[in-house]
Amino acid sequence: MSKLTVAFLLFPEVTQLDLTGPAQVLSRLGNARIELVAKTRDPVPTDAGFCLLPTATFSEVDSAEILCVPGGVGTLNVIEDEETLVWVRAVAADAAWVTSVCTGSLVLAAAGLLNGYRATSHWASRDQLKLFGAIPVPERVVFDRNRVTGGGVTAGIDFALELTARIRGDQHAKLVQLGLEYDPAPPFDCGTLKKADRATVNRFEEIAGQDLAQRAERVKAVAHAMQRHAD
Amino acid sequence: MSKLTVAFLLFPEVTQLDLTGPAQVLSRLGNARIELVAKTRDPVPTDAGFCLLPTATFSEVDSAEILCVPGGVGTLNVIEDEETLVWVRAVAADAAWVTSVCTGSLVLAAAGLLNGYRATSHWASRDQLKLFGAIPVPERVVFDRNRVTGGGVTAGIDFALELTARIRGDQHAKLVQLGLEYDPAPPFDCGTLKKADRATVNRFEEIAGQDLAQRAERVKAVAHAMQRHAD
Repeated sequence: MSKLTVAFLLFPEVTQLDLTGPAQVLSRLGNARIELVAKTRDPVPTDAGFCLLPTATFSEVDSAEILCVPGGVGTLNVIEDEETLVWVRAVAADAAWVTSVCTGSLVLAAAGLLNGYRATSHWASRDQLKLFGAIPVPERVVFDRNRVTGGGVTAGIDFALELTARIRGDQHAKLVQLGLEYDPAPPFDCGTLKKADRATVNRFEEIAGQDLAQRAERVKAVAHAMQRHAD
Repeated sequence: MSKLTVAFLLFPEVTQLDLTGPAQVLSRLGNARIELVAKTRDPVPTDAGFCLLPTATFSEVDSAEILCVPGGVGTLNVIEDEETLVWVRAVAADAAWVTSVCTGSLVLAAAGLLNGYRATSHWASRDQLKLFGAIPVPERVVFDRNRVTGGGVTAGIDFALELTARIRGDQHAKLVQLGLEYDPAPPFDCGTLKKADRATVNRFEEIAGQDLAQRAERVKAVAHAMQRHAD
C-alpha cells in the first residue's frame, strides 16, 4: 500500500485540537503519513500554551492526498497572508480531499476554494463563509464534492472518522473508532448555540463578543479586497 | 487569579490525543498554565507521526495543581523507568488532582498511586489495573477522591470537561463546551467493546491481539517486581 500524505497547515495561534484531533484519527488510515506543514521548521505556538513542531516547510511538501486546514485565532493572519494562501491553493489543486476544521474553512474560502460549495465552520463564524461565495450549512460535517469541512474544534474527530469511512470503508472506520474508544459522554448538552442555555450563551457573548466582532470586521475586509481584486 | 499549573507527563510514543484533548479543554480553565513535562527539552515523538515539544523538564516543574498522565504504547517503557515514576510520585504528592487518560492510569498504578482506588483505562487494558491494587471500573470517567482517570483516548475530552466543572463550576464548563462546539456525532455506535459489532471486535483482535498480549505480559512483569519489592 503506497503512502497517503495528509498535510495539515500549521500556523501560529492555531487551536491545536482542530489539528491534533483529526491527525490522531487520520494517522490510523493504515497507510498515512501525517505532515504538519509551516513556513519554517521553527516551533509554532498554539492557543493552548505549547508549541507544535512542523514536520516540513511549504517548499518540502507541495502535494498531498488530503489537505486539512485547522482553525483558531491565527486564521485571521493567515487569510491576510498571500504566501500561505498560495501554498494552500497549490496543494488543493491536486489533492483528492480539500478539508478544514473549525475556522480553517475561512482559510479555504479566502483562498478561493469554497466558492459555490456548501461548507461549515465554528458556529460563531459560520455565516462569514458567505462573504467568500460559500454556502454556510449548520451541520457538524459537510461533504460537497471533494471539499469536506468540519464545525468547531471537536468536530474534527467526527469529520476525520467520516473521511476515514469514505476512503477506507465503514469497517476500517469502525475499527479506528473502537481503538480510540470514541463513545463520547459530554457532561452537558450545550455544545451548539441551539442547545446551549441562555445563561451560557450570554456569558459567551460577554467574554468573546467584542473579540468576535473585531475578527468579523477583519474577515470582511479580506473578502472585500478579494472582491475588488476580482472585479 | 493566581496561575494553576497543569502538568502533563510527556514521553516517547504517547498517544498524542490523550494529551492534546484534555490540554485543549484545561487550557480554558481561565487561569491555567499548561506544561508538557519530559526528561529533556528534546522533541518527543508521538504515535501520530509528529513530535510534541516539551515546555519543561522534570527538574523545572516539580509541582502542579493538576498532574495528568496520558497513555499510549510508550507507557510500557514508562512503567519500567524509575526516573519517571519518581517524578510522577513527587508531583502527585502535592497535587490537588492526580489524573490520567487511557493507559496513563497504568503509569499512575505502577507509581503506586492507585492502590485501593477505583479507576479506569483504555478498555483493552483496564483489567491490568488490578495487578497494582486498583479497582477497575468500566466507566468513561472515574473520580475517586482526588484521583481522576479517563478511558481510552477520546475520553480525555469528557474527563477534562468534568474536571473543569469540579474546579470552576458547571457554568464555566458549559462555556468551554460551547466554545469547543462539543456536540459529538460519532459516525458509528461502536466506541466501546460492548457496543462494537462482532466483525469489528474480531478485526481488532486480529490486528492488535498479539501486540496487546505481549504488552500485558510486560505490565504483569512490572507488577510482580513491585510486589516482590514490597514483600
